[in-house]
Amino acid sequence: MSGNPAPEQTPDRFADDPAFAVHEGGKLSVASTRSIGSIEDLSLTYTPGVARVSSAIAAEPELARRFTWAPRVVAVVSDGTAVLGLGDIGPAAALPVMEGKACLFSEFAGLSSVPIVLSTTDVDEIVDTVMAIAPSFGGINLEDISAPRCFEIEDRLRERLDIPVMHDDQHGTAIVVLAALRNAAKVVGRELGDLRVVVSGAGAAGVACTKILLEAGVGDISVADSQGILHPGREVTGTKQWLVENTNSAGFAGTMVSALEGADVYLGVSGGSVPEAAIASMAPNAIVFSLANPTPEVDPDMAAKYAAVVATGRSDLPNQINNVLAFPGVFRGAIDAGATTITEEMKLAAATAIADVVGDDLRPDYIVPSPLDRRVATAVAEAVAACAREQGITR
Amino acid sequence: MSGNPAPEQTPDRFADDPAFAVHEGGKLSVASTRSIGSIEDLSLTYTPGVARVSSAIAAEPELARRFTWAPRVVAVVSDGTAVLGLGDIGPAAALPVMEGKACLFSEFAGLSSVPIVLSTTDVDEIVDTVMAIAPSFGGINLEDISAPRCFEIEDRLRERLDIPVMHDDQHGTAIVVLAALRNAAKVVGRELGDLRVVVSGAGAAGVACTKILLEAGVGDISVADSQGILHPGREVTGTKQWLVENTNSAGFAGTMVSALEGADVYLGVSGGSVPEAAIASMAPNAIVFSLANPTPEVDPDMAAKYAAVVATGRSDLPNQINNVLAFPGVFRGAIDAGATTITEEMKLAAATAIADVVGDDLRPDYIVPSPLDRRVATAVAEAVAACAREQGITR
Repeated sequence: MSGNPAPEQTPDRFADDPAFAVHEGGKLSVASTRSIGSIEDLSLTYTPGVARVSSAIAAEPELARRFTWAPRVVAVVSDGTAVLGLGDIGPAAALPVMEGKACLFSEFAGLSSVPIVLSTTDVDEIVDTVMAIAPSFGGINLEDISAPRCFEIEDRLRERLDIPVMHDDQHGTAIVVLAALRNAAKVVGRELGDLRVVVSGAGAAGVACTKILLEAGVGDISVADSQGILHPGREVTGTKQWLVENTNSAGFAGTMVSALEGADVYLGVSGGSVPEAAIASMAPNAIVFSLANPTPEVDPDMAAKYAAVVATGRSDLPNQINNVLAFPGVFRGAIDAGATTITEEMKLAAATAIADVVGDDLRPDYIVPSPLDRRVATAVAEAVAACAREQGITR
Repeated sequence: MSGNPAPEQTPDRFADDPAFAVHEGGKLSVASTRSIGSIEDLSLTYTPGVARVSSAIAAEPELARRFTWAPRVVAVVSDGTAVLGLGDIGPAAALPVMEGKACLFSEFAGLSSVPIVLSTTDVDEIVDTVMAIAPSFGGINLEDISAPRCFEIEDRLRERLDIPVMHDDQHGTAIVVLAALRNAAKVVGRELGDLRVVVSGAGAAGVACTKILLEAGVGDISVADSQGILHPGREVTGTKQWLVENTNSAGFAGTMVSALEGADVYLGVSGGSVPEAAIASMAPNAIVFSLANPTPEVDPDMAAKYAAVVATGRSDLPNQINNVLAFPGVFRGAIDAGATTITEEMKLAAATAIADVVGDDLRPDYIVPSPLDRRVATAVAEAVAACAREQGITR
């Protein structure tokens, strides 16, 4: 760190990339909200005073909601198996991402959160571990866990825990995609129910996007994995079987590229690349959401030649589909309301709230708010909390 | 919270006890150490910039020590089975204590720490859970886990993890007791090796105190459980068998009270009460450490009639034996040095450092520093780190 290093010092090989400086020493800090300046402070914060608080909670467990931090802390849990576009890089390498997520919870929702990266990738062990530590937290944000394990882990934890559990790669993405599609449809003067959508990717994000679009009333969705469009002739199991049964009502059997002919919406959550001819074959006023990062499946400049609305996952382009628009407000709202779970209705409410922040400023290159727009988390939290209260799933 | 409550409002039944106000809403907060004011900040703290940091760690795992917070975060882990004097009150009721501990880590050592309270009390499940979450942390402070399970849990975690693991109820107490006894011996002009010590209590604290006093050279220790002094005629197993083999070399078989006759030191870590006649029967210039809280085993006023030095666990009396003198500095030093474990030598170094802070101010009613003395954690951390480096157990 000296301004005048001795000649024998090795130059820091990370000095040229500002990302490393931002992550140096980690990005989080836990602090006491009570100062300890006197013996009395110490006696109230810790022993013997704390014993009276603990006794009260032991006698009346619901008091933990008032006198501990747990109801307001989110665990960001990952096994490091599907980290960004990097794949299975393990818990230590996943940690900077989970810390980043915790930074966003703090910055955008004022929520404390704690990254928990796991040394196991076994579904049973992950479920058992989260169950074991759950009394420490008020919500569980699952993150970067590979499909199809992520589906089972989330399902089992949602069933067994009475606090909000959400796999953000699924539902955070889905909520923002729905928000963006609501506004994109407005831009082109269409109803969601009239759109024919092709989803490229049947992993965590593809499945969740498909589900939320169906719930929102999109009439015709086909989903492609690497073998082409899922249809009744495909021998598949689990979540893909669910997709076979609930999408592609026409039973179209072909490639993703061939399915795009005449389609209104392309939603890419798969990586890879889509040929220009396929985008050119879409219906007039097409909508292209190409979310692979850092390289979208559809080149955005090329897409703009044919599509009326283009969105990506990239921060340097307009219409960024960024999960940060959803997860801070979703957890904040669920926690504020004391919700025992996150329902489909709460996710739909979150999507509408995000779309509504755009309001009258709606344009083809402004269908979602900026990820820095501080109004979003507040609006999402209020909508989610109101929905939870209406559904009667609060404590 | 209104200054003029409506008549129908129920008065807050916790308003009269300031301890509840201190714990309202919990006592901890996690914050981002990086502000996010621009798209560039967001792109560096989170995607896409974080991917470069994660990739670097995936290629070179040791970089996690530099670019994540994990090496500097302590998990404060409890199953809530032996909380203060309250016993097995469960994880939710234990949480205020663990939060308090985290406050002290933050206040006295500038360390981030995270309370993890567990929904299981099974030894295997606790070990598995801590192993599973260990990549998230740089140290494990076990807390308020009942004996004898605490011994096995600590042993197994120490064996399997390459980060510092310490059960504070054992070793934090033992370190401060040794520090206090070093100085108490000086006050009465005695050497540790010449003292005959009676330990009342063979639980977590009693066992650890006995071990550290033996390591420090105390020659003659007898340990009593509820059945009397442990001796070769007792049929015991596990840790108590270890005590039989390593203490009471004279093979004394009798009650704790009878053992006190002529003894130099009484160390109470058991609760209960000791009759005045027993204290009166101790050797001249006796030392009485009576640590049960809030009611010491030996009434301090009574003890003062016979003993040259009296210490308790109480904050309202002189010579408070408080773990906060040890654990913040021990973990800070181990973490600063990159120690892979906490050795017996590091604990002994911590005890000496605590005793030395008292220095020339040593008096019968000032054998340990005040728990608020900010010099202590720094001195302990430096001594512990230096010891780890000397032992070559750092990364």
